[in-house]
Amino acid sequence: MSQLLDRAVDELSKLPGIGERTALRLALHLLRQPLEGVEALSSSLIDFRRNIKRCRMCNNLSDTDLCPICSDTTRDRSTICVVEQVKDVLTIEHTRGYRGLYHVLGGVISPMDGIGPSDLKVGLLVDNVRRGGVTEVILALSTSIEGETTSYYISRQLAETGVKVTAIARGIGFGDEIDYADDVTLVHALSNRRAL
Amino acid sequence: MSQLLDRAVDELSKLPGIGERTALRLALHLLRQPLEGVEALSSSLIDFRRNIKRCRMCNNLSDTDLCPICSDTTRDRSTICVVEQVKDVLTIEHTRGYRGLYHVLGGVISPMDGIGPSDLKVGLLVDNVRRGGVTEVILALSTSIEGETTSYYISRQLAETGVKVTAIARGIGFGDEIDYADDVTLVHALSNRRAL
Repeated sequence: MSQLLDRAVDELSKLPGIGERTALRLALHLLRQPLEGVEALSSSLIDFRRNIKRCRMCNNLSDTDLCPICSDTTRDRSTICVVEQVKDVLTIEHTRGYRGLYHVLGGVISPMDGIGPSDLKVGLLVDNVRRGGVTEVILALSTSIEGETTSYYISRQLAETGVKVTAIARGIGFGDEIDYADDVTLVHALSNRRAL
Repeated sequence: MSQLLDRAVDELSKLPGIGERTALRLALHLLRQPLEGVEALSSSLIDFRRNIKRCRMCNNLSDTDLCPICSDTTRDRSTICVVEQVKDVLTIEHTRGYRGLYHVLGGVISPMDGIGPSDLKVGLLVDNVRRGGVTEVILALSTSIEGETTSYYISRQLAETGVKVTAIARGIGFGDEIDYADDVTLVHALSNRRAL
C-alpha cells in the first residue's frame, strides 16, 4: 500500500517482542506526533548506539570513561557486586539498598552459545581487586548451570588475591508462600537456614 | 547512570504500550545491533513521518498523490468501502475478499473528543460519489454509538446522490459458539437473519 509505511513497520518489527500488528500501531501513532517528536526518538537511539561507552573500571554502560558509580567518592569502594548484565545494575540500584561498586561481566560462561571465560570481563575484575582496597566480591549471577559455572570460575580466579567472595542469598522471596516456591529454591532456602 | 541510555529509554517509553522496562530492553537490544541497523530504523521512522501523503481520492496513507488501490484499474470502481482508520484498510485487504475501493474517514463523529462531521473526510466521499460510476457505498464503521452516529450522518449526506448505502453484516463470527456471543451481537444476528 505504502512502501514508507511498510519499511517503518518492517524496521519496528525487528525489535524483540514487537510483532507486525504492534509495529503498525506504533507507526500509526508516530504519524500523529509532530515531526520533532519522531526526530527526537530517532536521534536518541542513534546517539545512544553511537556514543555510549563502557566504564573502564566496571564495564557498565557509561557516557564517560569512568561511570558515575565508579567515580562517586561516597560509594563503598571495598565491595564489588558482580552481575551479568547492565540491567542487573539498574535493578539493584533501584532498591537503594546497596552502596558498593559493581562489575558487569557482560554474560555468563556458556559453551553452547560459544561464550568462554575470555569473552567475559573477569580479568578486569581480578585487576581491580589486585589494585587493593577491595575486601569483598559479591557474586549476583543467575542460578542457571551457566551462572553457577561462572561463579565458580570467578571465585577460582580471585582465590590468589585473598579477597572474600560471597554469593547473594537464595531462598523464599519476602512475602512469598512456601507452597508457591519451586523445589530448587526450597532446597536452597532449607540448606541456607540461619539461626534466629 | 548514563544520560544517553536515559534519553533513549525515555523516548522509547513515550510509545504506546511500551513501559520503562520494555524500553530498557529495547535500548539494550539496539546496543547489540550494528550501527547501520539502528540508523535504518531511525531513518525509516523519519522518512515515513516526513514523506507519507494522504491519497487525494480515498484519504488512505500513500507514497503518491493517488494511492495504489485508487490507481489500480483492475479494482471494482463501482463500490466504495468506508472505514474509520488506515489499519481497517489493511485488515480488509488482508482477507483478499474485497475488490472495490476504500474511503478512510480518519475517525468517527465524537463530540466528547471534539470530533465533528467537518473533521472527517465525508465531503470528499460525497464528491467522489457525485462524480459518478459508484453504485454502492459499504459502511464498515465500528458498532459504537459514535460509529452508528457517523454511519447515519454519512447515509444522510449521500441520500441526494441516490447511491445504494449498505452496512457490513453484524452477527455471530464464523466458527464462534452462540453462547460466547455478547447480547448485542446476538440480537443483531437474530434480527438480521436471512432466508436459506
